[in-house]
Amino acid sequence: MKDIGKIVLLGSGNVATHLAIALKEAGKTIVQIYSRTLENAGFLAKKVKADFTTDIAKIACNADLYIIAVSDDALAEVANGIDVNNNLIVHTSGSAPMDILKSCSENRGVLYPLQTFSRSRNIDFGKVPLCIEANSIESRERLKNLALSLSENIHFVDSEKRRVLHLAAVFACNFSNFMYTIAQKITEENNLSFDILKPLIEETAAKIEEITPVEAQTGPAVRGDEKIMKLHMDMLRKYPEFMEIYRLISEKIIKGG
Amino acid sequence: MKDIGKIVLLGSGNVATHLAIALKEAGKTIVQIYSRTLENAGFLAKKVKADFTTDIAKIACNADLYIIAVSDDALAEVANGIDVNNNLIVHTSGSAPMDILKSCSENRGVLYPLQTFSRSRNIDFGKVPLCIEANSIESRERLKNLALSLSENIHFVDSEKRRVLHLAAVFACNFSNFMYTIAQKITEENNLSFDILKPLIEETAAKIEEITPVEAQTGPAVRGDEKIMKLHMDMLRKYPEFMEIYRLISEKIIKGG
Repeated sequence: MKDIGKIVLLGSGNVATHLAIALKEAGKTIVQIYSRTLENAGFLAKKVKADFTTDIAKIACNADLYIIAVSDDALAEVANGIDVNNNLIVHTSGSAPMDILKSCSENRGVLYPLQTFSRSRNIDFGKVPLCIEANSIESRERLKNLALSLSENIHFVDSEKRRVLHLAAVFACNFSNFMYTIAQKITEENNLSFDILKPLIEETAAKIEEITPVEAQTGPAVRGDEKIMKLHMDMLRKYPEFMEIYRLISEKIIKGG
Repeated sequence: MKDIGKIVLLGSGNVATHLAIALKEAGKTIVQIYSRTLENAGFLAKKVKADFTTDIAKIACNADLYIIAVSDDALAEVANGIDVNNNLIVHTSGSAPMDILKSCSENRGVLYPLQTFSRSRNIDFGKVPLCIEANSIESRERLKNLALSLSENIHFVDSEKRRVLHLAAVFACNFSNFMYTIAQKITEENNLSFDILKPLIEETAAKIEEITPVEAQTGPAVRGDEKIMKLHMDMLRKYPEFMEIYRLISEKIIKGG
């Protein structure tokens, strides 16, 4: 079984960028970056000392692995346009099934990093949960070895379970981050620094390392404190866009989820 | 100006418990714990080597400071029932105005710890933001000195701003924690371990130390990925109680908050 050495990476967004850097640091060779946008392709290629192209017909055909790290919207199009000479190809999507790559190669899989990536923030890739799937034992082993060179936290997850994880991640990450956004708006519009809330946000996340979120729940709704909830609803008249969120989530907390 | 040494604490819930321990560790003497419930009063009193009572008429009258750390619902009742001999009295509520204590004493204030406390979890009180308010310069100085013995992170915040902070905290903490609860339900009902989401939750909170929540926002809604949002709404038919939350928050993220 041949180890994965040479990699072609398709994409230049947040996931592609963080993955490219982690692969490079793990000693892999990124032979080529593909992106529709010349500037993005060139920028990331320079960062990881790779060639680059904006023409999917000019993808190198002799790599050990092709990683499609593009948005779900663009995934099918890239998958349909690519010729990988039956080499191993994977995507990084939380929600797309593995078999979206069926037409690309007999050797296919998924490498889904279950993490939130922002361009301007470094991340310890060694802790990122990597969810792996492949359509053969051999491909799975090769992907596993690659994943283990990137992170200590790997999981074998099929397409159906992976999309469940992705849905849960939207709540745990994207939606909780939006709660921070609301908190920031409310504080800053009242000339209060958002910084004062940061220890609270940190502790809220840290708590669930030790206790379950159900046990960790605090606040007026779980206490059934009608008076405070009424006061908050009155205050939110200034922020009608957040009133419905307050009402709805409080209602669900009162009901116990 | 007399330093605060002897303290009477009214309450035995999460805030009262964590505060009592922090005060004790800061070298203060808790002379007495009051709680309506004998068991709770006794338990906390033993922990911090204090006397205890369940009869508000038997509160010690010679303490330097009285701290009412009860739920907002019970605050007015406790405030009305107490005689503190015009000594300094404060409450720990985020939302109640300072002057709810007007009838108690000419010397009053607020000591609001802007943090989430759970009984089963220890906390580094030295980092907890403490919001202070008082009705005189002298009381403010005395409270400030006390607060500085507990935490390095103190703020002077009046009643109006404090209730804004409390409202923001409900979003930042209580509601983001409920997003974790939903994520846990979704994973566990699908025989997936919630643990796999923990690095994501940790990173989501850690990000906003460096970048704003608006910059940190990721996920299908902010990308405008209609296909994934539709898939998620389909999957949520199994969890109708969370469907409306998904729809509403996604809609707000798309609109940019």
